Amino acid sequence: MEFPQYDIVVIGCGPAGLSAAINTTIRNKKTVVFGGDFCSPKLHRAPHINNYLGFWNITGEELRNKYLHHVQQLGIKVEQQKIDNIFPSGDTFNVVFKGNMVICKAIIIAVGLQNPKFLPGEEELLGKGVSYCATCDGPLYRGKKVALIGFTKEAEEDVNYLADIAEQIVYLPLYEGLGDINKKVRLLKEKPKSLLGKERLQALETEGETLELDGLFIIRDNIPPAQLLQGLELKQNAIVVDRKMATNIPGVFAAGDCTGPPYQLAKAVGEGAVAGLSAAGFLDERN
Amino acid sequence: MEFPQYDIVVIGCGPAGLSAAINTTIRNKKTVVFGGDFCSPKLHRAPHINNYLGFWNITGEELRNKYLHHVQQLGIKVEQQKIDNIFPSGDTFNVVFKGNMVICKAIIIAVGLQNPKFLPGEEELLGKGVSYCATCDGPLYRGKKVALIGFTKEAEEDVNYLADIAEQIVYLPLYEGLGDINKKVRLLKEKPKSLLGKERLQALETEGETLELDGLFIIRDNIPPAQLLQGLELKQNAIVVDRKMATNIPGVFAAGDCTGPPYQLAKAVGEGAVAGLSAAGFLDERN
Repeated sequence: MEFPQYDIVVIGCGPAGLSAAINTTIRNKKTVVFGGDFCSPKLHRAPHINNYLGFWNITGEELRNKYLHHVQQLGIKVEQQKIDNIFPSGDTFNVVFKGNMVICKAIIIAVGLQNPKFLPGEEELLGKGVSYCATCDGPLYRGKKVALIGFTKEAEEDVNYLADIAEQIVYLPLYEGLGDINKKVRLLKEKPKSLLGKERLQALETEGETLELDGLFIIRDNIPPAQLLQGLELKQNAIVVDRKMATNIPGVFAAGDCTGPPYQLAKAVGEGAVAGLSAAGFLDERN
Repeated sequence: MEFPQYDIVVIGCGPAGLSAAINTTIRNKKTVVFGGDFCSPKLHRAPHINNYLGFWNITGEELRNKYLHHVQQLGIKVEQQKIDNIFPSGDTFNVVFKGNMVICKAIIIAVGLQNPKFLPGEEELLGKGVSYCATCDGPLYRGKKVALIGFTKEAEEDVNYLADIAEQIVYLPLYEGLGDINKKVRLLKEKPKSLLGKERLQALETEGETLELDGLFIIRDNIPPAQLLQGLELKQNAIVVDRKMATNIPGVFAAGDCTGPPYQLAKAVGEGAVAGLSAAGFLDERN
């Protein structure tokens, strides 16, 4: 199977990601942007913005439209796909998402502010029965007992996929508007409280009961950057970058809110531009 | 005499300086911008700009007008004055320009790319007979022999001022369109070659002759940041900043091309925003 190849993959379609992509594209690097269902909801909701130089008293909605228009003019592809994992592989990176993969030479992470409230026990048990990726780890739980906590409707695809694999499956949806769920799934409309287990996950405690489990999947809107790419250096939950927006991993750059405060449009756009140009320069130097 | 007082002085009215000023103003800090005769001539001359997110295929002239309009809407004052020197004074800074001064609590340096080609001997003899500021150092040369190299028409005011002080004065204008020069001044339309002297300046060598001198003034468009503010840390001719755009001097921030490459609008605007917010935060913390 041949996977699509790109020079640069941008993860995130907010202001930083879009700014990075226009710069890499102008520098003639084959670029794809992976983003959520709706780019930059935070910008969309802003009543008005006064401190992005050049636009006085513009609404967030208008500015978002101008950003997207700019990107469209350059013919940049924005794929509405949540990335599950990035694996370095020699001089390239494998970027994995729902049942598919692309290959690229440099990555720009612009996933916005990732500050999930971890459940008690979650961080400790990650990889020890706790997973953020049903596609990646589902096959490990054939014939076993699993649960899935879904913060977003997208998780329904995962729960239905797991229903075909696992012996027992419980689904805790933490959003409004439940869709079409496989009949085999037991729905539990309760809030999760904490994860139990020392060496490995043993159970999930909810408000009303304790579920004994072999595996627990937690599907949020986004994956925290450190889980996206192993070994990525963080400090106070922000990706550590230098003045060129390079991270500690060669070929991986970051921009915008995920690199820390201030959480401002102009900073995100500026950092996106620098990350884009640095990634393009990284490829030029290597060729 | 009472000097005007500000919370924040921004030096430079290019994209970085204007972005800084809109942010400090929105944060209710009393701000003044000092800039050249014409803000951002480089932007003005750009035929078209494609990589400032939100504006597709805009001319530099149009974008500059939008920037200035934005600043005007916020009632920000842009003073067309070249700053000669900044002196820290306890918790405040004295910002000195032609025969006047303002006092402020924080400074944002956004002077753009300062990459003067120094004359041979210039850096070594600075402060040892060589000066960038006629107003500051002119009085030292009463009854002595001086020369002035003018890269800009603004230098004419300096040469006429020095004509009243010095015993002999030679003027080397390095621009087109000479104005009204004091009759006492000897005009020399030659290019300077090098400065002679070890402990102190002794002479200026031009293409045609060697001028014995007590003092030499060199007036460029802008003053290199290190001469503007003593002790400011530079590396490869760029002001060293951290992720908050703070320099090594508390209360002094920098943004835009003067902090190093890439020399891009979006970077300048982003850094200006960060510097502005950091300077405002610096004042809030101190109060």
